[in-house]
Amino acid sequence: MKKGVTTLKKLAKILNVSVSTVSRALNDHPDISTETKDSVKKLAQSMNYVPNIFAKGFRKSKSNILGVLVPNITHYFHSTILKGILEEASLRGYRVIISESNNDVLKQTEMLNTLTQFGVDGILASLTKMTKNVDSILPVFNKLPIILFDKVSNKVPCTQIITNDEEAAFNVVEHLINIGKKRIAIIKEREFSYNSEKRYTGYLKALKEHNIEVDEKIIISVDDISQQQGKRMTNLLLSLKNRPDAIFAITDYAAIGVIQTLKKFNIKIPEEIAVVGFSNNLNSTIIEPSLTTVDQPGETLGKTAVKYLIEEIESDTDIVMHKTIEIKGSLIIRESTFKVK
Amino acid sequence: MKKGVTTLKKLAKILNVSVSTVSRALNDHPDISTETKDSVKKLAQSMNYVPNIFAKGFRKSKSNILGVLVPNITHYFHSTILKGILEEASLRGYRVIISESNNDVLKQTEMLNTLTQFGVDGILASLTKMTKNVDSILPVFNKLPIILFDKVSNKVPCTQIITNDEEAAFNVVEHLINIGKKRIAIIKEREFSYNSEKRYTGYLKALKEHNIEVDEKIIISVDDISQQQGKRMTNLLLSLKNRPDAIFAITDYAAIGVIQTLKKFNIKIPEEIAVVGFSNNLNSTIIEPSLTTVDQPGETLGKTAVKYLIEEIESDTDIVMHKTIEIKGSLIIRESTFKVK
Repeated sequence: MKKGVTTLKKLAKILNVSVSTVSRALNDHPDISTETKDSVKKLAQSMNYVPNIFAKGFRKSKSNILGVLVPNITHYFHSTILKGILEEASLRGYRVIISESNNDVLKQTEMLNTLTQFGVDGILASLTKMTKNVDSILPVFNKLPIILFDKVSNKVPCTQIITNDEEAAFNVVEHLINIGKKRIAIIKEREFSYNSEKRYTGYLKALKEHNIEVDEKIIISVDDISQQQGKRMTNLLLSLKNRPDAIFAITDYAAIGVIQTLKKFNIKIPEEIAVVGFSNNLNSTIIEPSLTTVDQPGETLGKTAVKYLIEEIESDTDIVMHKTIEIKGSLIIRESTFKVK
Repeated sequence: MKKGVTTLKKLAKILNVSVSTVSRALNDHPDISTETKDSVKKLAQSMNYVPNIFAKGFRKSKSNILGVLVPNITHYFHSTILKGILEEASLRGYRVIISESNNDVLKQTEMLNTLTQFGVDGILASLTKMTKNVDSILPVFNKLPIILFDKVSNKVPCTQIITNDEEAAFNVVEHLINIGKKRIAIIKEREFSYNSEKRYTGYLKALKEHNIEVDEKIIISVDDISQQQGKRMTNLLLSLKNRPDAIFAITDYAAIGVIQTLKKFNIKIPEEIAVVGFSNNLNSTIIEPSLTTVDQPGETLGKTAVKYLIEEIESDTDIVMHKTIEIKGSLIIRESTFKVK
């Protein structure tokens, strides 16, 4: 919005009421008192306030370009999200430029500023693992429409598109319990990882609901989850006196490492130890036995994020309702938890 | 270079000689006659020509941002190249924005223009499969430093960074011949694919060198190579009266499809039919038997491309020597061609 133009914000500030009150007053909302309506309308008229429906025309010219920021561009799940973003943006006549924070908080701020300076119309961002303090990125959120996806933060006032990590993990563990498993290990990331923590919460809830005791010895946290870590942690779990009868690795890469190690020791999958991953990577059908996992609908998530962002960009009003949209991932049962007789 | 500033180009035009002659004259190169040197120096002085070493300072301010354009951002090999580009650029103090042409020639031109308008200092681009006519992208190449990588074109005057596709494919086929294979099929893409054609050339050269007759029946071309196509084409090859004893698929994805189909028919790998892929994807060690393939050093390629681009951007001279740099891929021998006794 150009300086000098009367905005809802400006009116709200002068009257010392909320922007939402001003907007509702101008739109004759029944919740607003007649006195407030009158004073808002009077001020709006005296300051040549242009109704929302025309406001768009006053904005600086659009670039029709969306900016995207992800922690790691080569990450499989994010590459499927990017695919959805690129497709949907193209369909709607927008171009996309992509950048990477390399999971570095400083670089994240830098790239958000760069995208803004470039004049993108809006930004889709997935935050770094470590984003606890959002102070340095908040200023960008006041400058243009931004939507967070996948790795989000409830400290940032914007629309957020997420997957149902907790519920999906709950379903994974319940499935393992249903096939008779009683001692279910989890290989997860440490607390700083947003998605990992949500999956861990789902794991704990499922155990609780089925009255299975939580055993810290089979809850394994690693710094940076990978196929290698899956292998190493399986060695560790196999060295326990009381071995698990199932391993839930919170990424497919780690789960593949788990399967490779179990096979090395001739442990029967799923009879002795069942294995579940998370993501439904291409690899999950290449490994033998094929991997039970959660299909994360990255393309749908990407497309949904673009829809909401363009809605904000093209909106005629100054008021944006921030929503949290949950995209559902579904459990895909394969040989690593189910034996065809 | 700002307008009004005297450039080597301007001097060359006035004197009706080449830019290279002007540059060499000013640097007292022995190949240039004394008369030419004198006239060049005289004109340069009269036009307040600023020697190259200071020219950089006259350029419009740098953005320290590199633009990257790839056909498909989720393509495995390109994602490893991107990793190298991002790392090297970061080390050298440059930011990177990435865009995708979606293998669409029109979108490619559009994105090259967008990146240029954004004021990037230079561009790294891999062309779409179908780029035969380069007229629409040539204007961009006159505006700022551009380097092509992987999918290049000899019609574009710029530095090009490629992999040794032809030589690597030659090595693949020679390896198959060395383990006793005589009837080697290839699954490749149609003529429009730059890399596929180079690998096919290597295949033909190896057969010729070893006096093996080329049989069109086992040379399979597909439109868009994939795991599915690998499966389908293997079915086709198995239906031949005279089956191949080896299959060289020019991507790992296709080779994995080949292995899966051979296993379905209980065909022994590599004894009955050996299999080789190309790329060294993560999947190539997950499939069983593990896949013999060519390791394409994507990260090295990406880093090399950034080095040459920054060299051009930061160069003090107007003259750029265009080079073609070949990054070597190496054959990785695994179980699909080699049986440990």
